[in-house]
Amino acid sequence: MFKKIKHVFISIYVICIIKPIAYLVYEKKYLTGKYFQNACDVGWRWVMKGLFFQKVLGFNRDVPWPVSCRCSVGFPQNIFFHPDDLNNFQGIGIYVQGYGRTFIGHGTWIGPHVGLITANHNIDDLDSHCTPKGIEIGKKCWIGMNSVILPGVTLGNKTIVGAGAVVTKSFPKGNCIIAGNPARIIKELR
Amino acid sequence: MFKKIKHVFISIYVICIIKPIAYLVYEKKYLTGKYFQNACDVGWRWVMKGLFFQKVLGFNRDVPWPVSCRCSVGFPQNIFFHPDDLNNFQGIGIYVQGYGRTFIGHGTWIGPHVGLITANHNIDDLDSHCTPKGIEIGKKCWIGMNSVILPGVTLGNKTIVGAGAVVTKSFPKGNCIIAGNPARIIKELR
Amino acid sequence: MFKKIKHVFISIYVICIIKPIAYLVYEKKYLTGKYFQNACDVGWRWVMKGLFFQKVLGFNRDVPWPVSCRCSVGFPQNIFFHPDDLNNFQGIGIYVQGYGRTFIGHGTWIGPHVGLITANHNIDDLDSHCTPKGIEIGKKCWIGMNSVILPGVTLGNKTIVGAGAVVTKSFPKGNCIIAGNPARIIKELR
Repeated sequence: MFKKIKHVFISIYVICIIKPIAYLVYEKKYLTGKYFQNACDVGWRWVMKGLFFQKVLGFNRDVPWPVSCRCSVGFPQNIFFHPDDLNNFQGIGIYVQGYGRTFIGHGTWIGPHVGLITANHNIDDLDSHCTPKGIEIGKKCWIGMNSVILPGVTLGNKTIVGAGAVVTKSFPKGNCIIAGNPARIIKELR
Repeated sequence: MFKKIKHVFISIYVICIIKPIAYLVYEKKYLTGKYFQNACDVGWRWVMKGLFFQKVLGFNRDVPWPVSCRCSVGFPQNIFFHPDDLNNFQGIGIYVQGYGRTFIGHGTWIGPHVGLITANHNIDDLDSHCTPKGIEIGKKCWIGMNSVILPGVTLGNKTIVGAGAVVTKSFPKGNCIIAGNPARIIKELR
Repeated sequence: MFKKIKHVFISIYVICIIKPIAYLVYEKKYLTGKYFQNACDVGWRWVMKGLFFQKVLGFNRDVPWPVSCRCSVGFPQNIFFHPDDLNNFQGIGIYVQGYGRTFIGHGTWIGPHVGLITANHNIDDLDSHCTPKGIEIGKKCWIGMNSVILPGVTLGNKTIVGAGAVVTKSFPKGNCIIAGNPARIIKELR
């Protein structure tokens, strides 16, 4: 009974207050998909947190979708993903540099403290960056905790990246488990 | 003189205001041990921070002990540790997944950005997880910065895990230094 | 037009309010250099954030320069760097332990989740630390994401540390790219 009343109050609050503000400050297309079906879904909680941490306190202020203050996302115009995968931006320590095109396939999971790097510093002038090289991550991949994907890497569908891996080259065929520093195939998946 | 007055004021504040609230929102057994001996001990500062970040802002809201907003702790009912080791949850970037039983022995130290993972994603359906496998860390271990302990791992007493290690298998005998990706014994301790 | 008015307002705000407070709570020498040339420069934004997160909320409270709440800096009296490199403390996940002398050369870039460790735990009594050994990082180095520099390490000028590297020994000659766990030279720079 108490739970039901709470549920109704949250729904009214989300629909009447949070939703209209969210549609003003975020891009509407990101507030769709499986995390935004009902007013009590977790997506609206991400929105509430994001309104405070992104728009008031200024962590990832210019990103037009909800991002946790514990992640760092640059240049959102270069970052492409399905709204069903918005969970990847609510974790801890994720760093998406965004200098170059960063494509994350539908159904991909990204672990804590993962880096997606698209431009190295220019070795002859560290204050500038090299020309960015895009990252392309396929569908249904899983990037393990503390791993880093370096510029220019393509990972095919269903690439599993082990924890702590440093992915320096592409594995475009997918269907494999890669791990290590530098990452190598340790198992092919059927 | 000034320091003494400050000390008295903090003590009164902690005893009269912080302690009663803490006993309401946290489990009392965690607020014992070496960090909670006196009203000026650091444990009560963790409580003050936790009251704001956990209970007001909602980082690790459901965890019944003080956790820094810079750590991520899931499923506290599966996580077991001695209250003297509460410092491990006040660091930066620590990720305790908690799907499975996570046991941390007395006197163990956990470094920044360490992950304790007890369930992998199910490779055939990444949206779900495999059956969790517990982690058992012995007494007086030290888990170095940026290392990850994977599901099912047992580490014996006095296992030292080097920085950046990825621990994929068990070292139940302990008394050793392990390092690398995957972690291997690099030195036996007498 | 609107931008110009905004610019003027920010300048007045920074010069009349932020600057005098900053000079009280930070050491003035850190608020110089390329990030503090004009009132609209990013350095003053770091100051504004720092005033709230360091001095009000207490993250890295005792550090006399602006540090992001997402970094962890201990013992500032042991940490030496050029004010032009203050950007290294505004990132995500950086951990500078500071037990021993930590010298960061001018023009060095430090990536996300990097650790600079100057004292190991004492293996025979983990509650205490070994005698610290200083870290010396040369000029124009670049420390890649998720890498860790261990106690006693010296890196010569222009040492590039690959992502995820664990630097266990010194590379005093510099002019090289090192990577791996443990880090080895993978390329000499001319």
